[in-house]
Amino acid sequence: MDTEQLTQKILDGDRRALARAITLVESGRKDHRAKAGELLSELAKHKRQSLRIGLSGTPGVGKSTFIESFGMMLTGLGLRVAVLAVDPSSARSGGSILGDKTRMERLSRDKNAFIRPSPSQSHLGGVARRSREAVALCEAAGFDVVLIETVGVGQSETVVAEMSDLFLLLLAPAGGDELQGVKRGIMEMADLILVNKADGPLKPVATRTCADYSGALRLLRKRPQDPEGFPKALMVSAVEEHGLDNAWEEMQALTAWRKENGHWDRRRADQACYWFDQEVRQALLARLETPEAKAQMAELAGTVSEGGKSPGEAARIMLKALGAA
Amino acid sequence: MDTEQLTQKILDGDRRALARAITLVESGRKDHRAKAGELLSELAKHKRQSLRIGLSGTPGVGKSTFIESFGMMLTGLGLRVAVLAVDPSSARSGGSILGDKTRMERLSRDKNAFIRPSPSQSHLGGVARRSREAVALCEAAGFDVVLIETVGVGQSETVVAEMSDLFLLLLAPAGGDELQGVKRGIMEMADLILVNKADGPLKPVATRTCADYSGALRLLRKRPQDPEGFPKALMVSAVEEHGLDNAWEEMQALTAWRKENGHWDRRRADQACYWFDQEVRQALLARLETPEAKAQMAELAGTVSEGGKSPGEAARIMLKALGAA
Repeated sequence: MDTEQLTQKILDGDRRALARAITLVESGRKDHRAKAGELLSELAKHKRQSLRIGLSGTPGVGKSTFIESFGMMLTGLGLRVAVLAVDPSSARSGGSILGDKTRMERLSRDKNAFIRPSPSQSHLGGVARRSREAVALCEAAGFDVVLIETVGVGQSETVVAEMSDLFLLLLAPAGGDELQGVKRGIMEMADLILVNKADGPLKPVATRTCADYSGALRLLRKRPQDPEGFPKALMVSAVEEHGLDNAWEEMQALTAWRKENGHWDRRRADQACYWFDQEVRQALLARLETPEAKAQMAELAGTVSEGGKSPGEAARIMLKALGAA
Repeated sequence: MDTEQLTQKILDGDRRALARAITLVESGRKDHRAKAGELLSELAKHKRQSLRIGLSGTPGVGKSTFIESFGMMLTGLGLRVAVLAVDPSSARSGGSILGDKTRMERLSRDKNAFIRPSPSQSHLGGVARRSREAVALCEAAGFDVVLIETVGVGQSETVVAEMSDLFLLLLAPAGGDELQGVKRGIMEMADLILVNKADGPLKPVATRTCADYSGALRLLRKRPQDPEGFPKALMVSAVEEHGLDNAWEEMQALTAWRKENGHWDRRRADQACYWFDQEVRQALLARLETPEAKAQMAELAGTVSEGGKSPGEAARIMLKALGAA
């Protein structure tokens, strides 16, 4: 299929064409990269926008159940929903977080939903670019909502936040000794904190957890892109499917406010600049990604770590080896 | 003075030699860089360590008063104290946050204290390397404590945290409508939150502020390098000079625990690796620091921001211009 045909099919919302295009942007082959670039430039002209919702939460908080229930609610409202995953760990583990579609059995059979497992990747830079391009393809294919899930390995939340309009943090109820706490830096990215499992015997704990996080959010500096009362902590039950409609209303209210006040466009523009900058930097840093460079970096890091060389000395040796000194 | 002489004088704690060496590491001249590298390698062999305390706080929280009172308390205990500043904004503003020593009049006259204003700098990468090297020089000069102050512009807190053993966040008491909140990401770097101005009519507000932050800290995931009860929020009054001894005891307790449990050495080793990695990366990215490259990056970012080009397209143009495509 040539680029023109593929462009048209994606714009028509053809799911097989979309899947094929995502495979294309995931490829590292030079001719594939060129074709992907051409395709993305063509599609960008149509300036279609989805609501891109980033979602983070550690294993055990019920993320799959939440995505399934929330996704089904959205398709029930007549919306088309795409689900993507950013998982820099999948190369290592050999698996992928959305690889097993049975995790979201109902949603995967819904004709208004599109679920794409995360590809195997070798480093976060690559994951970021490919994920961002996959999101752009889903937007061009006319999805109303694109859910971008992350497992929260390393910097993956930052990556997801930088390609999302809204960022949700899903938590499980916990108190006292069980209090696990939130990974550092994440609470401060969230537009909404959703305390899941607010059902059955956990409901009182969820109420308390929700109040605690509401209090903590108030201590953070107000961001210009937040109306009064945001970021907010809410209770949901993905299993009992309640609180989801309320959460969706809050997301819509926040989105409407940001659009009205120019923050939506500004954030989109800032994100585009961020990714432009990142792509340039990553290309310049690509010399560190060869197996030889990685091995030498690791060896020098070992020496530095033992105090055998200062960071500056080791850096000079490495740069000389790269022919960049 | 040759490197050997300078090395010896610094090891002897000669303040003029130290000041001169800091000027040397701040220089961008190639021969100065080479000499600085040699000097730092020589000094590193002596493996002298200070307690490096990073300190952040927005203007108005009483940071200078705190540094003066805390510094005087330390010198009163017979300790030698160096104060450095990391201020990436000073190039722009033309000033420097510690430029005016009258801000810390008593401390600047204390023979056991050494205060160094922040240099004018052009970008954070440069600021980071030079500051880190200035810290290393102070350590070699035998200071017991090195206080590293930051104004909190951009990423400067991260930079300071990565060259500190302890990171303190200084806050002013605030409640209700005045609540300014903490810059995102900063609370989660803190080992101690110090609520200053716990004196006079502000004392009840300070007590409440301190309790609020204690609550918020408990919601964060426990870090392996923290013993039970840390990070902690405490009240101090820099003006009335109380609470400072308690804060110092907590810092010592935390430090002792980390040393005993291997976290001190591990953190030092991790930081050295971090800076090695950063130096290599910054050197590879130096091509973006020329006036021409900056101008072209800015122009392309403008186009991307207006939607005239996709991030990927713009990146390819830039990389071609850099001869790196």
